[in-house]
Amino acid sequence: MTLELTVYKIGGEVLDHPDTLTQLLEDMATVSGAKVLVHGGGKIGTEMARRLGVETAMVGGRRITSPEMLEVALMVYGGLINRRLVAQLQALSCPALGLTGADMDVIRARRRPPGEIDYGLAGDVTGVNTERLGMLLDQGIMPVLAPLTHDGAGQLLNTNADTIAAETAIALSRRYQVRLVFCFDKTGVLLDLNRPESLVTYLDRPLFDDMRHTGVIAGGMIPKLENAFSAIQAGVTEVLICHASAAGKAGTPAFIGTVIR
Amino acid sequence: MTLELTVYKIGGEVLDHPDTLTQLLEDMATVSGAKVLVHGGGKIGTEMARRLGVETAMVGGRRITSPEMLEVALMVYGGLINRRLVAQLQALSCPALGLTGADMDVIRARRRPPGEIDYGLAGDVTGVNTERLGMLLDQGIMPVLAPLTHDGAGQLLNTNADTIAAETAIALSRRYQVRLVFCFDKTGVLLDLNRPESLVTYLDRPLFDDMRHTGVIAGGMIPKLENAFSAIQAGVTEVLICHASAAGKAGTPAFIGTVIR
Repeated sequence: MTLELTVYKIGGEVLDHPDTLTQLLEDMATVSGAKVLVHGGGKIGTEMARRLGVETAMVGGRRITSPEMLEVALMVYGGLINRRLVAQLQALSCPALGLTGADMDVIRARRRPPGEIDYGLAGDVTGVNTERLGMLLDQGIMPVLAPLTHDGAGQLLNTNADTIAAETAIALSRRYQVRLVFCFDKTGVLLDLNRPESLVTYLDRPLFDDMRHTGVIAGGMIPKLENAFSAIQAGVTEVLICHASAAGKAGTPAFIGTVIR
Repeated sequence: MTLELTVYKIGGEVLDHPDTLTQLLEDMATVSGAKVLVHGGGKIGTEMARRLGVETAMVGGRRITSPEMLEVALMVYGGLINRRLVAQLQALSCPALGLTGADMDVIRARRRPPGEIDYGLAGDVTGVNTERLGMLLDQGIMPVLAPLTHDGAGQLLNTNADTIAAETAIALSRRYQVRLVFCFDKTGVLLDLNRPESLVTYLDRPLFDDMRHTGVIAGGMIPKLENAFSAIQAGVTEVLICHASAAGKAGTPAFIGTVIR
């Protein structure tokens, strides 16, 4: 029997709302089986950059990581957010361990080669150390991954949290039956963003392609879903996209959200 | 045969000098046996507090930790410094893992009870999880401890790095033959601060008491040495106080510094 593992991804939509976050962590703590939490940033990163006078440049929805912005990411994602999530999980008797990709060399990346756009100190994942993560999971420890990787030569790199979640889920699917849960502030993939009841409960590739061509799915949801389909293709059992309040119900009949298999 | 373990402590005197730090990390990477690195802060913490407009209050050489100052500590010690040390060690093929006390619940503390002075969010160590640290060390992993602990109820706490180093060394002396190395910017304990050749190569309790009464040892060196003697009393094999450049020679005849047994 293959062991079950759930990879939860939370972004700014969840991190910026303490009550939602606390409820999610409480729900996660009661779920049995192995667990990994991947977090992104949130308003606090932007706010800290502003207070420190560090300018944020964005291209195509992605942040350009200057050396100064990497410092902010290390402080806010690698320090403040990651350390607090771990302390909060410990209070729920969840033996959490905060990691960047550099810790125990769990996630390596290479700096994205400058093309038309130079993304700066942004890293594309090249490898996930399943042996080390597996060793932690075997000990009942819950890795809490910050959106930071390293190149193995001493350089830390900023890396998209959705990508880290998908790559980690894919790599661990060799050892576990993996469920990947993207938590955000909507019920799931919606046919009409203003109508929560227009939830797409089941999404497959043809329907996704169709919805993208008609413009029903647009913006930041496209890379998130591309990540989801890549994960399924690469061995992840199912990907769920749901509101943070539904994440604890993943895999049960009470779950509300979008299921991708 | 008991396994050997070295606990290195580095403070601002080392962290503020990149060349000294790099050399020390290179030296440490070549030393065989199990290793733990404990780091403090440095100028960058004070500088970040200033940039963010957070006021630093000091009483009796110790920082009062306001909630705002704890945020700075989480960002700078728990994020910037800790994550960079880990990435730098990985580049030296040292499988480092950055931790606060909350990670895997390795170091618990309780908030120091307000007496004549309220130290704010400062924690006194109550327990070191030797089983979890031992599990990491058994896997060849090198824990890199930031000067932060937690109370188990979700509150992170600022904790003196010398204390963390001493408490960790003491706790692990149940499983290992432990050497504790305090690295700083002097050759060791000096009879005359202006004369490096006045090094005290061997210090015992009577000599320490004598030097303290005559005022030869004063200031921040007193709590450091008190920590050292407590560690010896509690089972640590030896405590070394030396310049960062000598740390890699600990336990060899080429070592220059103060030895406390």
